Amino acid sequence: MKLFVVGLGPGGAEQITPRAMAVLNQCDVIAGYTVYIDLIRELFPGKRLLDTPMKQEEKRCRLAIEEALSGNTVALVSSGDAGVYGMAGIMYETAREFPEIEIEVVAGITAACSGGALLGAPLSHDFAVISLSDLLTPWEKIEARLQAAAQADFVICLYNPASKKRSDYLARASEIIMRFQSGDLPAGIVRNIGREDESWQVTTLAALREIPVDMFTTVMIGNSQTRIIRGKMVTPRGYRYEET
Amino acid sequence: MKLFVVGLGPGGAEQITPRAMAVLNQCDVIAGYTVYIDLIRELFPGKRLLDTPMKQEEKRCRLAIEEALSGNTVALVSSGDAGVYGMAGIMYETAREFPEIEIEVVAGITAACSGGALLGAPLSHDFAVISLSDLLTPWEKIEARLQAAAQADFVICLYNPASKKRSDYLARASEIIMRFQSGDLPAGIVRNIGREDESWQVTTLAALREIPVDMFTTVMIGNSQTRIIRGKMVTPRGYRYEET
Ligand SMILES: C[S@@+](CC[C@H](N)C(=O)[O-])C[C@H]1O[C@@H](n2cnc3c(N)ncnc32)[C@H](O)[C@@H]1O
Ligand SMILES: C[S@@+](CC[C@H](N)C(=O)[O-])C[C@H]1O[C@@H](n2cnc3c(N)ncnc32)[C@H](O)[C@@H]1O
Repeated sequence: MKLFVVGLGPGGAEQITPRAMAVLNQCDVIAGYTVYIDLIRELFPGKRLLDTPMKQEEKRCRLAIEEALSGNTVALVSSGDAGVYGMAGIMYETAREFPEIEIEVVAGITAACSGGALLGAPLSHDFAVISLSDLLTPWEKIEARLQAAAQADFVICLYNPASKKRSDYLARASEIIMRFQSGDLPAGIVRNIGREDESWQVTTLAALREIPVDMFTTVMIGNSQTRIIRGKMVTPRGYRYEET
Repeated sequence: MKLFVVGLGPGGAEQITPRAMAVLNQCDVIAGYTVYIDLIRELFPGKRLLDTPMKQEEKRCRLAIEEALSGNTVALVSSGDAGVYGMAGIMYETAREFPEIEIEVVAGITAACSGGALLGAPLSHDFAVISLSDLLTPWEKIEARLQAAAQADFVICLYNPASKKRSDYLARASEIIMRFQSGDLPAGIVRNIGREDESWQVTTLAALREIPVDMFTTVMIGNSQTRIIRGKMVTPRGYRYEET
């Protein structure tokens, strides 16, 4: 009995790896969040697709487990990478009582990398990935991580920068980072990577406080060495690096 | 005039995205570090391939620029993602004086994600990516980042954990993290992901001090919530998460 957790990359079929495609083709059933299932529906005509709405992650895992137990090969899909704030972790936890089901995670391109490519090269040096969602993490913990990352001059990549209820979280996060870093640091915003309406924008840390973002957005904040070259965000590989 | 910087993913062809393959097929010339050029040679029979040895990153960029200036469409390849300690940043810097050359970065699966998939789901919550190479970064800066990441309970992913000259760096890094985190934290080691001799191992932070690693290795250290399930490293999505 085999259950795959598969990362679909940021959006279009051209960023799904051949390995992920091979696994999805081989599966009897593909389960996932409605939006992602809709994105891949036309790639798999005739395949059984099960979709569940947002915030029902555990239900989605149970659905996939039931299918596996009934003898089907199942794939549960995540956007981006299956591991990075994706379904792989909760799948392992939910399937704990079913050791007879073998689990395999298939990696995908995470938003930090696909977004980084659009913005230039923001992630060429050490970086911290932080989610601003406080659904499952106390805000104090998020704040402590923002502080630690800013203080140690990490490039910072923010996932889940906002939701309908949390429209001011990016502004709050930017304020925290500005306690330790200059408001002039290059920053970048990418939205709907790999999908229709893909867009990106290079700006500054201070300006992030005024820019509206939503849950389809990923935000990058440079470190003290990050420069703007050709309108793109570029972080040098090191601190002793000699500019040419 | 167009120059692509392309991430090849961890190793085999099945983790190269269709987008990256399309770009490489369309290019007149592919340039890269000898080892990566050798990995893809058989995929592109008849293509002009230029390889340069390690540590000649700038020379590699200049070679690619010359080809572009002479009218060829060129791809410079990186392993993993082109941005994460890859060639994208140095390409932007080296090409600064040549605005007539258009640069496009094509994302790939970075070792954190491909390695995370093998280890289970270590990256389901906030994580810090740190390189232990002090070639271009003072060791004090690396140490400060290890401390900050450990103190704020990030999952930590280490790139470049060792080289011939730096065989004890992982032990030193583990000691620093253990000032703030328990030595019992789950940790993982992945080597040669996607290549021949791929291997992975789940262990503990304390044990990392004794395990030999090399430059083909990526190391993960869990946060305080990371558990071992079915022999894999699994980080829950949050802190208030109720176990089922
Ligand atoms: C629950 S997380 C899932 C991340 C996903 N597993 C990954 O690796 O990219 C959702 C967040 O990921 C980021 N994200 C995922 N896909 C995106 C896309 N196509 N464009 C921009 N941001 C994206 C956004 O920050 C979004 O709020
Ligand atoms: C100069 S960095 C390049 C990283 C690459 N751009 C990426 O995104 O994966 C080299 C380091 O990446 C990690 N790495 C890259 N490819 C790997 C692989 N196939 N297996 C294990 N680790 C790998 C190792 O930590 C290695 O020391």
